[in-house]
Amino acid sequence: MTCEGEHPPAPRSSEGLPGFDFRAEGAAAIEWVARYLERLREFPVLAQVEPGQIRAALPASPPERGEPFSDVLRDLEAVLLPGVTHWQSPRFFSYFAVTASEPGILAELLAAALNQVSFIWRSSPASTELELLTLDWLAQLLGLPDGWHGHIEDTASTSTLAALIAARHVTGRSAVAFSEHAHSSVEKDARMLGLEPRKLAADEEFRLQTDAVERELARGDVAAVVATVGTTSATSVDPVAEIADLCERHGAWLHVDAAYAGASWVCPEFRWSQAGVERADSLVVNPHKWIFTPVDCSALWTRKPAAFREAFTLVPEYLRTTDEAESLSDYGPALGRRFRALKLWAVLRCFGREGLQERVREAVRLAELFEGWVRAEPGWEVSAPRHFSLVCFRREASDEENLALLERVNRSGEIFISHTKLAGRVVLRLAVGNARTTEEDVRLAWDVLRREAEG
Amino acid sequence: MTCEGEHPPAPRSSEGLPGFDFRAEGAAAIEWVARYLERLREFPVLAQVEPGQIRAALPASPPERGEPFSDVLRDLEAVLLPGVTHWQSPRFFSYFAVTASEPGILAELLAAALNQVSFIWRSSPASTELELLTLDWLAQLLGLPDGWHGHIEDTASTSTLAALIAARHVTGRSAVAFSEHAHSSVEKDARMLGLEPRKLAADEEFRLQTDAVERELARGDVAAVVATVGTTSATSVDPVAEIADLCERHGAWLHVDAAYAGASWVCPEFRWSQAGVERADSLVVNPHKWIFTPVDCSALWTRKPAAFREAFTLVPEYLRTTDEAESLSDYGPALGRRFRALKLWAVLRCFGREGLQERVREAVRLAELFEGWVRAEPGWEVSAPRHFSLVCFRREASDEENLALLERVNRSGEIFISHTKLAGRVVLRLAVGNARTTEEDVRLAWDVLRREAEG
Repeated sequence: MTCEGEHPPAPRSSEGLPGFDFRAEGAAAIEWVARYLERLREFPVLAQVEPGQIRAALPASPPERGEPFSDVLRDLEAVLLPGVTHWQSPRFFSYFAVTASEPGILAELLAAALNQVSFIWRSSPASTELELLTLDWLAQLLGLPDGWHGHIEDTASTSTLAALIAARHVTGRSAVAFSEHAHSSVEKDARMLGLEPRKLAADEEFRLQTDAVERELARGDVAAVVATVGTTSATSVDPVAEIADLCERHGAWLHVDAAYAGASWVCPEFRWSQAGVERADSLVVNPHKWIFTPVDCSALWTRKPAAFREAFTLVPEYLRTTDEAESLSDYGPALGRRFRALKLWAVLRCFGREGLQERVREAVRLAELFEGWVRAEPGWEVSAPRHFSLVCFRREASDEENLALLERVNRSGEIFISHTKLAGRVVLRLAVGNARTTEEDVRLAWDVLRREAEG
Repeated sequence: MTCEGEHPPAPRSSEGLPGFDFRAEGAAAIEWVARYLERLREFPVLAQVEPGQIRAALPASPPERGEPFSDVLRDLEAVLLPGVTHWQSPRFFSYFAVTASEPGILAELLAAALNQVSFIWRSSPASTELELLTLDWLAQLLGLPDGWHGHIEDTASTSTLAALIAARHVTGRSAVAFSEHAHSSVEKDARMLGLEPRKLAADEEFRLQTDAVERELARGDVAAVVATVGTTSATSVDPVAEIADLCERHGAWLHVDAAYAGASWVCPEFRWSQAGVERADSLVVNPHKWIFTPVDCSALWTRKPAAFREAFTLVPEYLRTTDEAESLSDYGPALGRRFRALKLWAVLRCFGREGLQERVREAVRLAELFEGWVRAEPGWEVSAPRHFSLVCFRREASDEENLALLERVNRSGEIFISHTKLAGRVVLRLAVGNARTTEEDVRLAWDVLRREAEG
């Protein structure tokens, strides 16, 4: 297939970046990463810098001549690292804790080297087909219905955006209904699209109220209802089956956001929270949250792939081919798509079903343990039912005192937690989910919290 | 800052993926990449597989137990590689040729290891500040006005989407005007947002006609005009300065798409094509096209950052902080953002201004050379003015014969080119831009084309 007989290859000196020894620089980069992962407990979890500090430490202008890669590595260590909030730390308990696992990290290296741009099938058959296959694998692992069409978007913001576009296309309607506890991206997506966001009341356990949904649907202009399994604030689970009934009756699209909690379905004992999801028109689960895949990797499934194709397909002449194969850019906003399936494939293979189950169960066990400590301690309270690996809790004190405690804890650098508001009150959130977190780490979090509460 | 005195670190066995030797697997991955880059001329450029072939060669279900990473590498080589279209090949002349350079590849490894999710400043100060700085560096390199606000989106599809959202927010209008030669993502973006796409006629050199723009603007409902510097089909350059006048007069937003050609501005001799761009409300240039950065990396600048903030800011309680610093999720659709600035920073440092200039000039020189060969050869013609590193050309023959020639050339695997339609006729496109492409490679392309045209 090569033509080197006739055309001698160009001299090596014209290859790539002159003087760049890829093996040597690559070895240095791998060593840096290995050392970084070994040092994770040594860094303050939340970056202890002031706004502008990192930027001020770097040159205001780019170099005229190329610099060695070793300078980049040196400045990453010396200048940037103090500005890194360590999402990889086993003591990161903020937002939802995530993990870029080892196979995921190395797969990103491979994907960058291959530099696939899979806007149509022929521009990267391997990327397109592996993405479809890997999403089928993940659907099997999570116990989703057979035959759904899955592809990868960057984040849940984009997955939900794509679902809302398909919903508007199918229904021709102009509003989106969701819980006051739905993720902020739902309202942002609706606004971006010029759809009217309708934020509905939740019940005392932070679940979308079905009678509010019903009233809203009766107005006849709701294109989609977004139900959440595992809300960001409290991991509450909306009554998806009842909402599916209502959507069916009123001809509205049902999109389910299980960005975080969907991963738990790898374990049968958490599939109670999947009830009704099999009737969703679209579903988002983020492997970059709790399936140990580096950001960005958001899985979007639909049982109505034709609706997506109709809403998104637009093939200009320069991309027209006679290939009889599908192109994943016909299912979402972006034309250029990188080879994200590679990292998810590597993670699913290297963990296997059992490996994923073990880590999900361990995270939930640790959260349960922490919940028990809070319940047993005078002056503290658990603020929401714990369904998965997030504990919502607070000092029995004012909002101001809880916020001040939060700030002291995070400034210590020992752990990093976040907060939210539930029922009008400030609540602290401890999210277990990083694959390296041990019982010792959770115990440390509790010690730091109690120490700072007394301080 | 650590608390290991009180709390002994957890045993190593609980760290990461059990039995995963990151240094050893990392070395194997680096070696694979090094070998891949050395073999780029050995592969058929366009994947020579049938739809479904790659998927059929892989297990239909995920493993129950974890597998070694060496199996992933083995299957990448044996199963996936035949399905890869080699965007890294120096003989890839299709669409726009791109390069994941060595520093860019390694920076993606580092970014994956750090796994930053920079939705707000404190969740990754380093990522946020390096992104702002790096976009300033790039603005300096390209000769853009001082003080523009720059951030990174995944692709030009998303950058333009963000610009159109800001434009609608500011103007309250409902239509988008652009050339028939604008990139397909512009029309797709407009449709996604429920804005009316107005495709306008181009002149005989494929430039948007200003009188068509003026007529459209007179209707009073145009939120934004999208002008292109370097159209996908022909790299034509719309009359941006005249369009800027018209937009100003009619209160419309001007978005400039220089996704490909904007990179040429690193060389002063190509800045003729920048005339008027300094008056744009927003501008997109893709470093993943011609600035040697792995996908995805699309730079979006605006001189109206407040319009973006107003359109996109939505801070839920769980992301509220007292930090006085900006969050880049307030400038685009996605909340979660990965550390894309790291690769752009590594590329700009390791190439330097001179390194970028050299490669842009060499690509243009090679395209010019090829253009000369086509002009000198009976039976062939150049089909559009060559402004940068793309040559549009054809056999003096029917569309069918040109398409058949295209298919034979690409099936040979020796080179990969693409096509478009200009003035109603099928035209072949040879895009130089891969950093490893030499004169020998372009000579080979011409030889293959002539051979297949005679065959």
